[in-house]
Amino acid sequence: MPPSTPANPGTPVSEIETPALIVELDLLEENLQTMAGFMSGYPEVSWRAHAKTHKCVELARRQIAAGAIGICVQKTGEAEVFAGAGIEDILVTNQVVDPRKLQRLARLAGRSRIAVCCDDPDNARAIGAAAEAEGTRIGVLIEIETGAKRAGVDGTAALAATIAAIEDNGNLHFRGLQAYNGPAQHKRTMAERQAAITYTADRVRAALRFLESQGVACETVTGGGTGTFPLEAASGVYTEVQPGSFIFMDADYARNGETGGTVFAAFRQSLFVLTSVTSLRPGQYALVDAGHKAAAVDSGMPVLHGQNGVTFTRAADDYGVIEFEQGSGNLSLGRQLRLIPGHCDPTVNLHDWILGVRDGVVECCWKVDARGALL
Amino acid sequence: MPPSTPANPGTPVSEIETPALIVELDLLEENLQTMAGFMSGYPEVSWRAHAKTHKCVELARRQIAAGAIGICVQKTGEAEVFAGAGIEDILVTNQVVDPRKLQRLARLAGRSRIAVCCDDPDNARAIGAAAEAEGTRIGVLIEIETGAKRAGVDGTAALAATIAAIEDNGNLHFRGLQAYNGPAQHKRTMAERQAAITYTADRVRAALRFLESQGVACETVTGGGTGTFPLEAASGVYTEVQPGSFIFMDADYARNGETGGTVFAAFRQSLFVLTSVTSLRPGQYALVDAGHKAAAVDSGMPVLHGQNGVTFTRAADDYGVIEFEQGSGNLSLGRQLRLIPGHCDPTVNLHDWILGVRDGVVECCWKVDARGALL
Repeated sequence: MPPSTPANPGTPVSEIETPALIVELDLLEENLQTMAGFMSGYPEVSWRAHAKTHKCVELARRQIAAGAIGICVQKTGEAEVFAGAGIEDILVTNQVVDPRKLQRLARLAGRSRIAVCCDDPDNARAIGAAAEAEGTRIGVLIEIETGAKRAGVDGTAALAATIAAIEDNGNLHFRGLQAYNGPAQHKRTMAERQAAITYTADRVRAALRFLESQGVACETVTGGGTGTFPLEAASGVYTEVQPGSFIFMDADYARNGETGGTVFAAFRQSLFVLTSVTSLRPGQYALVDAGHKAAAVDSGMPVLHGQNGVTFTRAADDYGVIEFEQGSGNLSLGRQLRLIPGHCDPTVNLHDWILGVRDGVVECCWKVDARGALL
Repeated sequence: MPPSTPANPGTPVSEIETPALIVELDLLEENLQTMAGFMSGYPEVSWRAHAKTHKCVELARRQIAAGAIGICVQKTGEAEVFAGAGIEDILVTNQVVDPRKLQRLARLAGRSRIAVCCDDPDNARAIGAAAEAEGTRIGVLIEIETGAKRAGVDGTAALAATIAAIEDNGNLHFRGLQAYNGPAQHKRTMAERQAAITYTADRVRAALRFLESQGVACETVTGGGTGTFPLEAASGVYTEVQPGSFIFMDADYARNGETGGTVFAAFRQSLFVLTSVTSLRPGQYALVDAGHKAAAVDSGMPVLHGQNGVTFTRAADDYGVIEFEQGSGNLSLGRQLRLIPGHCDPTVNLHDWILGVRDGVVECCWKVDARGALL
């Protein structure tokens, strides 16, 4: 049994047990509309929502209802959760090597449209063998090196060998190229992000020229996250973008936002870790009941929302320390505060429930369906 | 339903699906014996195992069988899991403020011996009210400030007010003092750790003198973690120590170990995140299937076990990057590697299962019973 919900629908936010993950539904819906509105300006480019951010079937459904053509996931286990809930188009934006995972993926391909990334000819053959054994067809995207030190074929010889292995197997369908520049998402100035994506798009163009020279059709070029998707959308080479965090946003992305000037600046912080003061040293610091088991710190400390002169300075496992510049304001034992997580994706993965709130009341409790789906 | 186990008992380690959390049972048992052996040299000092490390009922039972007088937890929800499984003596090493949590704690006090830390007279009265309403008795330890910027009363006026509030309520039992110096656990030299604990023990002595002057008996002084418990045990003021990580150890504690010279150096790394190579750039780097959703990075990157010239340099959500100093050794796609987590406690909290392995075979699958028990 997963831990019980921190509150039921109808509960005032002030009565939610903490720490709890809450999302402001008005802001979440606004973010979805912002994305849909922006993408409507690029009718030749699709958006595929990255579900590793929320791991939540209800949110995937809402993204698809808002215009996403499907979802991305990182793990086979995540794909199983979403396919099991009827999500029809799933891209695993990662390499899957273990033959047992490939078997599971091949089985899923019997119920949903499944694609996976690949950067190695032997791996392509293994994917093909799994699809053959299950009598299904798996889409394969060749991941190309983007200058980000992650997966991806580097150079035309590796690309040629991988494409040959894919085309050699009737149970595989070459879908195109995956070119995701992860670190570019978090470069702080628009100029740096633009330079990174220009470099990546040039790599894509070189790969496309090679494919064309070989007579290989490439229907899809996919990549781009919340920090850069407007650049990929406008690049002229991408046919699909994969933003995830935009529905929630986080403190790290907020540091990008300062450069403004794009649709990016329109996304609102909708996700918060609700926490409460459990110990108070007036004028100096307070302890709250959320530490790094409630708000992930891989991208820095959470930021207090709507509080001036108060800084979250340290996260222990199960409590956080907030320090006051001057006085302790109106804080008292039990006082609720909202934390903007440093990084939304791993924070959601720490929780079993997302509480949707509106006008100060809990409206819905969404299970984090694929929480912990590591395999 | 939690995600399924990465392997069943009887499976060779080489066939465990990854990423998976494994513990070498021989080393775990050795760590328990090391602790029991050391503590037998201090018959006047008890050890109470901190269960926030493992969140696992089976491990709590083994610790108690090895001589622990009970367990510590950080959250009311953790206390519920362990009390529900029959663990009889539980200390919540944290402040609990929310009246609903206090009600739950008061109910638990009807089935297990429950104590909680307190550093505020109003909070003491709230604990008392909850115990009264449930007709149970809750033990209370006053947490004192240890120089570590965490919870704790600071000075005799605050101590006097809190003790008065506890003694005023017949449903509360004053059990003594909690004095845990968290940051001291990770100071890198024994001299620094000794200085920190000497300071903390002096604060305890001052508090004990005050209590004595007021005619208040203090049966327990508790504190000390894996990094410092030999110092608290030898201090002459502590009656109980609270180590948790020693059963598993981690990369951060290993950095302490270099100073050697104590029982600490005898603890063995028993916990590993088993991961596999999913992408390989020979001679440069490889990607593995464990990122920071599988191995917590709040205390730094995981460290590769048993591999020279290979460094885990970056954790993304769902993959990790390992870089080679020279060549890529014998790595190939699918190759299993063992990671020593940077920090064991939050790493365990990312997993639903701990696989106990011995002689290369899975012997048991333990549920991480209190994973995600944040409330």
